[in-house]
Amino acid sequence: MTVKQLSMPELVDACRESGVPAVGLWRAPVQEYGLARTAKLVREAGLNVTTLCRGGFLTAVDPAGRARALDDNRLAVDEAATLGTDTLVLVSGGLPAGSKDLHGARERIADALAELGPYAEERGVRLAVEPLHPMFASDRCVVSTLTQALDLAERFPAHQVGVAVDTYHLWWDDRAPAEVARAGAAGRIHTFQLADWTTPLPEGVLNGRGQLGDGAVDLRAWRGYVEAAGYTGPVEVELFNDALWSRDGREVLAETVARFLAHAV
Amino acid sequence: MTVKQLSMPELVDACRESGVPAVGLWRAPVQEYGLARTAKLVREAGLNVTTLCRGGFLTAVDPAGRARALDDNRLAVDEAATLGTDTLVLVSGGLPAGSKDLHGARERIADALAELGPYAEERGVRLAVEPLHPMFASDRCVVSTLTQALDLAERFPAHQVGVAVDTYHLWWDDRAPAEVARAGAAGRIHTFQLADWTTPLPEGVLNGRGQLGDGAVDLRAWRGYVEAAGYTGPVEVELFNDALWSRDGREVLAETVARFLAHAV
Repeated sequence: MTVKQLSMPELVDACRESGVPAVGLWRAPVQEYGLARTAKLVREAGLNVTTLCRGGFLTAVDPAGRARALDDNRLAVDEAATLGTDTLVLVSGGLPAGSKDLHGARERIADALAELGPYAEERGVRLAVEPLHPMFASDRCVVSTLTQALDLAERFPAHQVGVAVDTYHLWWDDRAPAEVARAGAAGRIHTFQLADWTTPLPEGVLNGRGQLGDGAVDLRAWRGYVEAAGYTGPVEVELFNDALWSRDGREVLAETVARFLAHAV
Repeated sequence: MTVKQLSMPELVDACRESGVPAVGLWRAPVQEYGLARTAKLVREAGLNVTTLCRGGFLTAVDPAGRARALDDNRLAVDEAATLGTDTLVLVSGGLPAGSKDLHGARERIADALAELGPYAEERGVRLAVEPLHPMFASDRCVVSTLTQALDLAERFPAHQVGVAVDTYHLWWDDRAPAEVARAGAAGRIHTFQLADWTTPLPEGVLNGRGQLGDGAVDLRAWRGYVEAAGYTGPVEVELFNDALWSRDGREVLAETVARFLAHAV
């Protein structure tokens, strides 16, 4: 998503040019290019797929909406398996229209994980519950802290359900470093993502994630937290940013690699 | 601030018309109308002043900036005393330019409270540390949760330093209700403020607070939390909202009273 302006073949080429050995993919561009075609493209290029984003949106109350969500998440698991990644990231979903019941919504996510975890395991895929910044709690994700994500994940085996640790969502929370250690000790850090925090936030607050080094997050400290917790998996850079999307994608990828080396290594 | 389009005399009249017995004031409009003049106006109208907003911005590193902040906060304490309110609300401040050190910034707030607490006590004023939503952590307030605010406040006597509980900033946090109980047991809920959470957030995210009943917050449950914690003080409604500010202030105040009665009583 950091360079969503690139087509799938352009992305693969740009990763090779920039020395990026692995990439996280999003479902919509994969579906647009074709699932089997994408899987073949990345496999032949020797590009590893770190994660597939995203399943989730599991908070519907009505049975039909809930069944649709579960069907879609099973499809997302299948897509992840086809792409050769072992991790499906979940954005859990916000409050249903008119609801004020955060606790109930979180419990419905647990119910869904109980159905999806075994399905994913059979296909070699782990689910990564991603806590999103509290500013998304009503409309996108009622799981707002790493504590909440782990409390959900720990109801299930670690090889079925873990968490996604994203600096953009967690940087402000003084409890998060200890929770990273908790997650690592349980083998539940299923992916680690970097973005910086910059202000002012744009309208809707979705597409204002900062390029690495531009903001308030001590990225090197965060790498230290996950490494001290035993995490040895890939480090993803996930920037939703209108300004970056308006530029040449190859240039943005090269810049991101440089920023990564300057601020996160 | 909910009806900042009203002049000070208009505000006093509108409160009388709407049956509002007390009002929280902000420093800028008070200074504009004149401190002594405002104090006289509200006193003669029989209108109680619940709180003065806001002191704070206590995170500067440089000695000159720190001295200026302390001077300004002492002035704010004096203003509160003159207005006849016992509570000064503090918005603690964000990260200094270029800093990524949230912990250090929070410690500088503690240092400032140690100087300001006794000064305020001598003048019959309590300080209320207000945790702001985590989306303000970098540029406005590094105190993001009620837990953090209480951890700061509890270093000092409760009659010097407590907290402001504002539903807008805390509604998403599943730990907050227990922390309200903790605050109440210690006599540290120095004010209670209502606003609703609505999306999409506007650019800059400052002026998008929802009218009561328009959003995701269970306001009645929150009144229950503070009442169960022993709070018997005023309930303030603080809405930063461009749409409300563009309307007739008297109409907005009457609407707010009606919403309060419908959603928070």
